[in-house]
Amino acid sequence: MTARGGRRPGDSGTRAAILVAARESFGSTGFSGTTIRGVARAAGVDPALVHHFFGNKQGLFSAAMELPYDPSRVVADLLADGTEGLGERVVRTFLAIWDGTPGQGPMLALLRSAVTDEQAADSLRAFLSRALLAPLAQATGRDRPELRANLVASQMIGLAVVRYVVRLEPLASAEPDDLARALGPTLDRYLNAPLRHPA
Amino acid sequence: MTARGGRRPGDSGTRAAILVAARESFGSTGFSGTTIRGVARAAGVDPALVHHFFGNKQGLFSAAMELPYDPSRVVADLLADGTEGLGERVVRTFLAIWDGTPGQGPMLALLRSAVTDEQAADSLRAFLSRALLAPLAQATGRDRPELRANLVASQMIGLAVVRYVVRLEPLASAEPDDLARALGPTLDRYLNAPLRHPA
Repeated sequence: MTARGGRRPGDSGTRAAILVAARESFGSTGFSGTTIRGVARAAGVDPALVHHFFGNKQGLFSAAMELPYDPSRVVADLLADGTEGLGERVVRTFLAIWDGTPGQGPMLALLRSAVTDEQAADSLRAFLSRALLAPLAQATGRDRPELRANLVASQMIGLAVVRYVVRLEPLASAEPDDLARALGPTLDRYLNAPLRHPA
Repeated sequence: MTARGGRRPGDSGTRAAILVAARESFGSTGFSGTTIRGVARAAGVDPALVHHFFGNKQGLFSAAMELPYDPSRVVADLLADGTEGLGERVVRTFLAIWDGTPGQGPMLALLRSAVTDEQAADSLRAFLSRALLAPLAQATGRDRPELRANLVASQMIGLAVVRYVVRLEPLASAEPDDLARALGPTLDRYLNAPLRHPA
């Protein structure tokens, strides 16, 4: 069950069964309450097979939510070019992913769920904190990385709500370049500038 | 029916009937689809009486949503001291209203509704644009007041989602002063600084 090389004939069915179990677990007990071991048990497979297919819990969550990208790779790519212009790059990447997904797909579903459902909110919370934002904030080596990560989340979630849900104009139809220039400096400040200034 | 001075014995019942009709109208046809005339007709009163009790459509909406403040007065108060430190004052006022309302009451209900219901989104959209944000952005006399208003909305809606809905820590438990210092400069920039910077 722990074979790492190549795919076997039964792989796609096994993979699908794991995803069914994972969606059920993430939906009912949230991200924090979900374990690789529990999902494996529900799917009737060895935990090592879950790791084989999906890496870690974040990878499993991404696959279960059908996110069209791997968040850890996105963060790595964003940081690869250093912190210069990082805010604009975060906005451009975020908009490229959301604008490029018809109807904003599972991301909008996750956001809608999180606003009305406590378990989904828990999933979004853990996902944002561990997979995306904390690494981004910590990369700059500044104080209070968790608060910085929260501030970035507040601006990006608000951007998603205003652009894709409430659709306030002119922001909803604004060009990504325009928004990157307007919002980038905000994220740069949250990530990499003193958060207190003299009263 | 158009008497402006004093309250008559039947006023509180009439006022309540108007609010019932208004909530039904705002809930079913949204802010844009609601008219003073239509609400008056549904409540069986003269339109002048709706104006007498609630002023204009925004006043009626505020009363129907049971908002614990008059948005036009809030904006006027914020602008009374000029644009110096305006961003911090916006954040402090926003948090004082939200933190001071147990469970965040109708504001959180409106936000939740807007994220999942198109009519409620329409209501929130019109309410934000006309009653709160456009006046705030226009007060500074800068270019692109609507986009500036949208940007302010994106940060404040995101703040509400992260603090009161998803409850990301440490932001959810952060002191208002701390958040005002962190977020204030963002709003000042959206309201009152060049939105493009050299590429």
